[in-house]
Amino acid sequence: MATSASSDDENKANWLTRKLSPKKSTSPRSSAINRLSSVTNPSFISISDILKPTRPTGHQSKPQQSTVDNSLVDIAVNAGTDISSLADKSRGTIDFFHTPPTTIPTAQGNRYDDWSTIDWLSDQARDRLRHEIITEQRKQSLWKRFLAYHDALSGWFCVLLIAVNIGILAAIVDIGAVWLTNIKDGICLPAFYLSREQCCWTSSNQTYDNYQHIRCVHWHEWAHLLHITSGTTAEYVVNYIAYVFFGLIFATSCALLVKTFAPYACGSGVPEVKTILSGFIIRGYLGVWTLFIKSLGMILGTSANLLLGKEGPFVHSSCCCGNIFARLFPKYGQNEAKKREILSAAAAAGVSVAFGAPIGGVLFSLEEVSYYFPLKTLWRSFFCAMIASLMVKVLSPFENQHLGLFYVGNRYRWFYFEMIPFLLLGILGGLFGSLFIKLNLAWCRIRKRTLLGRYPVTEVIVVALVTLLVSYPNPYTRMSMSDLIRRLVSSCESDDESFLCNYERNSTSAYEKNDSAKPLSGVWLSVALLCSALVTQTSLFIITFGIKVPCGLFIPSMTLGAITGRIVGILFETLVYYWPNFFLFANECSTADEQCIAPGFYAVIGACAFLGGVTRMTVSLVVIMVELTGGLSYSLPLMCAALVSKLVGDALVGEGIYDAHIKLNNYPYLDVKTEFIDQTTAVAVLENKEEKNELIMLPRDGLTLEELTVIIRTHKYNGYPVVSSREEPSIIGFVLRRDLQLAIEQRTLINIQSNMNPHISFSRTTNQSNSLNIYRLLNRSPTTVTLDTPTTTVIDMCRKLGAQTILVTNDKGHLTGILTKKDIIAYVKQKKTK
Amino acid sequence: MATSASSDDENKANWLTRKLSPKKSTSPRSSAINRLSSVTNPSFISISDILKPTRPTGHQSKPQQSTVDNSLVDIAVNAGTDISSLADKSRGTIDFFHTPPTTIPTAQGNRYDDWSTIDWLSDQARDRLRHEIITEQRKQSLWKRFLAYHDALSGWFCVLLIAVNIGILAAIVDIGAVWLTNIKDGICLPAFYLSREQCCWTSSNQTYDNYQHIRCVHWHEWAHLLHITSGTTAEYVVNYIAYVFFGLIFATSCALLVKTFAPYACGSGVPEVKTILSGFIIRGYLGVWTLFIKSLGMILGTSANLLLGKEGPFVHSSCCCGNIFARLFPKYGQNEAKKREILSAAAAAGVSVAFGAPIGGVLFSLEEVSYYFPLKTLWRSFFCAMIASLMVKVLSPFENQHLGLFYVGNRYRWFYFEMIPFLLLGILGGLFGSLFIKLNLAWCRIRKRTLLGRYPVTEVIVVALVTLLVSYPNPYTRMSMSDLIRRLVSSCESDDESFLCNYERNSTSAYEKNDSAKPLSGVWLSVALLCSALVTQTSLFIITFGIKVPCGLFIPSMTLGAITGRIVGILFETLVYYWPNFFLFANECSTADEQCIAPGFYAVIGACAFLGGVTRMTVSLVVIMVELTGGLSYSLPLMCAALVSKLVGDALVGEGIYDAHIKLNNYPYLDVKTEFIDQTTAVAVLENKEEKNELIMLPRDGLTLEELTVIIRTHKYNGYPVVSSREEPSIIGFVLRRDLQLAIEQRTLINIQSNMNPHISFSRTTNQSNSLNIYRLLNRSPTTVTLDTPTTTVIDMCRKLGAQTILVTNDKGHLTGILTKKDIIAYVKQKKTK
Repeated sequence: MATSASSDDENKANWLTRKLSPKKSTSPRSSAINRLSSVTNPSFISISDILKPTRPTGHQSKPQQSTVDNSLVDIAVNAGTDISSLADKSRGTIDFFHTPPTTIPTAQGNRYDDWSTIDWLSDQARDRLRHEIITEQRKQSLWKRFLAYHDALSGWFCVLLIAVNIGILAAIVDIGAVWLTNIKDGICLPAFYLSREQCCWTSSNQTYDNYQHIRCVHWHEWAHLLHITSGTTAEYVVNYIAYVFFGLIFATSCALLVKTFAPYACGSGVPEVKTILSGFIIRGYLGVWTLFIKSLGMILGTSANLLLGKEGPFVHSSCCCGNIFARLFPKYGQNEAKKREILSAAAAAGVSVAFGAPIGGVLFSLEEVSYYFPLKTLWRSFFCAMIASLMVKVLSPFENQHLGLFYVGNRYRWFYFEMIPFLLLGILGGLFGSLFIKLNLAWCRIRKRTLLGRYPVTEVIVVALVTLLVSYPNPYTRMSMSDLIRRLVSSCESDDESFLCNYERNSTSAYEKNDSAKPLSGVWLSVALLCSALVTQTSLFIITFGIKVPCGLFIPSMTLGAITGRIVGILFETLVYYWPNFFLFANECSTADEQCIAPGFYAVIGACAFLGGVTRMTVSLVVIMVELTGGLSYSLPLMCAALVSKLVGDALVGEGIYDAHIKLNNYPYLDVKTEFIDQTTAVAVLENKEEKNELIMLPRDGLTLEELTVIIRTHKYNGYPVVSSREEPSIIGFVLRRDLQLAIEQRTLINIQSNMNPHISFSRTTNQSNSLNIYRLLNRSPTTVTLDTPTTTVIDMCRKLGAQTILVTNDKGHLTGILTKKDIIAYVKQKKTK
Repeated sequence: MATSASSDDENKANWLTRKLSPKKSTSPRSSAINRLSSVTNPSFISISDILKPTRPTGHQSKPQQSTVDNSLVDIAVNAGTDISSLADKSRGTIDFFHTPPTTIPTAQGNRYDDWSTIDWLSDQARDRLRHEIITEQRKQSLWKRFLAYHDALSGWFCVLLIAVNIGILAAIVDIGAVWLTNIKDGICLPAFYLSREQCCWTSSNQTYDNYQHIRCVHWHEWAHLLHITSGTTAEYVVNYIAYVFFGLIFATSCALLVKTFAPYACGSGVPEVKTILSGFIIRGYLGVWTLFIKSLGMILGTSANLLLGKEGPFVHSSCCCGNIFARLFPKYGQNEAKKREILSAAAAAGVSVAFGAPIGGVLFSLEEVSYYFPLKTLWRSFFCAMIASLMVKVLSPFENQHLGLFYVGNRYRWFYFEMIPFLLLGILGGLFGSLFIKLNLAWCRIRKRTLLGRYPVTEVIVVALVTLLVSYPNPYTRMSMSDLIRRLVSSCESDDESFLCNYERNSTSAYEKNDSAKPLSGVWLSVALLCSALVTQTSLFIITFGIKVPCGLFIPSMTLGAITGRIVGILFETLVYYWPNFFLFANECSTADEQCIAPGFYAVIGACAFLGGVTRMTVSLVVIMVELTGGLSYSLPLMCAALVSKLVGDALVGEGIYDAHIKLNNYPYLDVKTEFIDQTTAVAVLENKEEKNELIMLPRDGLTLEELTVIIRTHKYNGYPVVSSREEPSIIGFVLRRDLQLAIEQRTLINIQSNMNPHISFSRTTNQSNSLNIYRLLNRSPTTVTLDTPTTTVIDMCRKLGAQTILVTNDKGHLTGILTKKDIIAYVKQKKTK
């Protein structure tokens, strides 16, 4: 009998009324199928049954039982690829009916289809069974005991491996990006592979220009190499051209690499990682090529001076690492639910290496990225983040990274009246964040709708060209964004001759006690340059985030915030200088040991506020800022700025950039943080479903193979509820489509073989070869709610219990509908837009 | 008809077989009861129905409808005490049958009994309804709009109030404790209310003794006041006696206060707070008296030099504050589930003020204390912790608290080879923690079983006496534990003349470059004293934790850890001094800018390891230590020590001290963090129930009042499932005992009144006054699982969805059992002890 559908497919729709009486089959096959049900419902299975000693398989009468046991283990632990020690790999197939394994289609690995939801509950059940088997086997031998310990610790080994690799990767990216960024300006003649700073370390006479650019004899700008006289227009033009030329090359190669080798490597990656961690499958998104190209892209993109950061891409790369190394540990690699525990930890390490902020990274993963088990993975995430951050520190040649990317220490002291400008910065941050999200989304929509989206590489080149042309003339935008932030948050030392620190000095110290400094013309020139930088960079940032290269948004947001903060700080400082007796600060400032207003501190607050406005992070933002600056005493003003920024931002645009992009791209993400307040019940969700009229139910047992084949061909659902009868559809259980499909395929194969060779089917005389008893394939405890269950409870069942499919019954206990996670997401989305 | 039970109570047990046909009642009463069902299942109610304008109540025919509406709102928002603007307070009763309210027993406030589980699902439903009503009413007037905003922000107001009050409280406790501690030694003659340090601020000539005790002319020890010559034995004896005398007075008064006014104020409080946050009601545990006595007890207890800290008690006090201030905001005060959000935030503030560690406090609340909504309350907890910590800083006179209780800054640098002693300290911490937990539990059991437990005050006095007698001779135990820790973690400055810093000095600096210092006799005297302190304090700590005064364990654990750490540090330092060329540190130490081994840093690591061993905290521990010391660069060694300590500890004793005490006291706590791996299903949990044979089901409708009265008297369950018939018990819903009881009481009252005054019952002719249609009182969506549902899913339904009662059906959909949260806790406990 063939599996091909008969022509009267639609006529078979009356299958449900054919109710066959349950059969009492006592053959080994029935016990096999009985145990088989543990794929989706392993709860009724006895461990001692499973762990019978393995015997060689054959076609004799007795060994069939042992094959059953082996195949059971195979199925229970994800189609035999899970624990290589438990099952003979050669038989690693879903062996439903003891047919020779080589002839049966395998279902290894790809348990879930691309873009499907994972079922946490059944994945967890599989992991519990696996765990129980290993625990049981531990007593058998010393080797098994070792394997059990290895299994118990494999999570830690896995994150250790991931952490070490992320650390190495981050160090390479850091060093590479700094070197390439400097290449735009010039080259270190004694050793071309050294960055400007490293090059000048060995030089005896370092100097700084007015913008604190380091200068030394070993470092040669391109114009200088061409023997063009210093200080001439020609020098400027040549350097300008070299800057634009190299930048364009970097940007173009980055875009081409992404387009050619790994299209998934573009963008920030955080929205996608969030979606994946919430239980969706995006094949290839966390692959080796993505990792490689994204890392390379980060180096090239930031070197091209594009308005993009490395933080989102680092989170993405870390998760790629996590995904790749999880494959080495079957406990995680073969179980999508368990794998997400590893990915959560990897995401923490991503932020940790991007900023050298391990605690902040863990909180970021916890607050923003992780979905299902935030606390369970807390400790392991922390370990991962810590080791990764340590690796970067060990490998990185930059001394200051030992303390924090933008270290200022506890140098600044702040006064309570300064809360007013801090809150002002918070408001500005919220406004900026909302403006950015709105305009960026609008631009992304334009990109999608118009021709722009069809030429991603051209777009990158154009954006890069504009960015490079605009950036060079302004010394603050010419330098890399990290350098600019470092410059803006630092205080003015007494020997600082740069324009930003051009204050009237009375003594060796920039500030006398009880005295505010008077800003001179250099400061105002800086302010003008910073203002122009603010305008150009904001516009560029809006069109840059979303182009097809790896692009994060932490550093650009923080740069714009730091610029605004420094400007506000200088203005406030001037205010205090000229009106020292204003009631707000008259008493406070006079008691100050050092300077009363530190514009550098305002830059820190501004960076926090702007980043908060864009991402709407809360605790993790403050902790990241504290770790970046090394100032534990700054947490209160940072928190106030973040709070105000979030309040203002939420009032204007209700969600952060990541959630906005999730929505823009229509990712199937069910928000886990926001409370859904609404008085509706499951009825409303059911009524909102797109395909209302279809409710496919299977009878308890006795469907013929053809009927089943027709059903799973006609109605391509994930699974089908099995009920007692059509008239009174009490729920018996739920059967997955892929289980049905496999059972049908194998049964068909057996039938063909037994037709050809009647001797094989000796033990199956009691079975009608034309019917399939689905009762044995059932998950007998599907998640069920009634029509009266509040929607919020239904949502919580999805996001807290991890249910994928929820059956709905009426008040008589009869099945009246099926809700999938996607239906619920659609309902929530529709309610929110109302 | 009276509610008194008829004598043939037991004969009524056949009630279930009496199946009455459902009645179609169209009277106003039926609609009242229909809406009434929204208490437990508000999902079917329409808001527009509720919000009809209020009309005066009377006994006329028409206004009865409006009374129904009012009473509905009353019920929906917790017996009318929720939103005063919505319902006339005078009618704030559960008005089932329009009888005059004054004669009806009210059910305000005490929705839950003492020691009962709260039902998160129905509390959340009530909150949703409340929210919807307010949102709807917002459009009616400006005042209503203001009320709606006030409601939306009330959570923030509430935590702000709590934070400010906790901050003030903490400042008072801090100042009071320091002052009283110093009183044991002497008094500040110019101003008796000043502590020793404050007293000496004004003095021009401060000196320090060999143990860094501050000395000055204004501060007079008791012997000095009695004009006893300095340096004599008499002086020592008099000071000794004064020390013991004052200490005993403090300890005795503390114990008496606790015993007399607030028995709940004893102990740490963290296990109980954890239990309460997991959804249990312990009346009075978070009351005003507890708050007051616990705060006073903290001052007295620590001043008596007992081996106890303030951290646990601060968490408890904060939660008391939270509970008290939540009463001002009906949104939280009237809803036990919502109130726990506030308590979570308050717990964070507790640790925050105890240590000045706001981020650590939030993580402690998240990791250790909070239960149901850790992430939801994250931001608000952070706000609360921050403001509370700020308040302490503003109010506290101690300068150093601006940075951290045990501030050392980023002074210490560590080398990778030092990981070996750090890991050793981790192992010691794990060993100590396990030893402490085992011995302390054993001691607590002895206390429970023997006479000891009957004389708590005597026990406190004896413990205090022993502690004081033992403490005085050793200068390191004589000082307060905080001072000792501060002493141990600090480094040796060049002008430090104390015994602990008695090193051979070559120059003005204690350490030459590339040179380790040689410890002299003073150091070894210190080590000997510290060793003896370690032994005595450990023994005292074991018997102290659990006596009937407020006692935390953070500071004692940290003290013992710091002592061990400092000893290990000094030994290691000596090792490096005498064998400088040992391969491990030969290269590393020679590159050191300053001292190679800093014993103070070992004290920090030791404190972390010991505290970790006792509490098994993870991330929060490391963050608290970082905030305490102000050293962001220490996080890696701290994490390693905490990790090793937890690993060793978990291998020896599987749980932290808090969980051990929860188990010891048999608190009904379902652990939310640990995974329960087990292949059983709901069947196993059902079989584990103590009362297996009883399954009380109610028929769908039509039970007489007497029958119902008998049932709720005979079977005192929380609620009863309602099924279609005894033979085929399909679940219709679940009715709560208290709803039934109220309905019966009111119905009985009506019957009495209508018997007396036949005119009242004109509109109820269609109703049999002898029956009660329970169908209308039902929660029609009870949480239901099948017998095949894995136990882990059942547990997750309790701890993640917050279900209180779970109905179990067999594969035919018929009710076969009921599981309560307590059954599940009992099952988990039994499984774990196996």
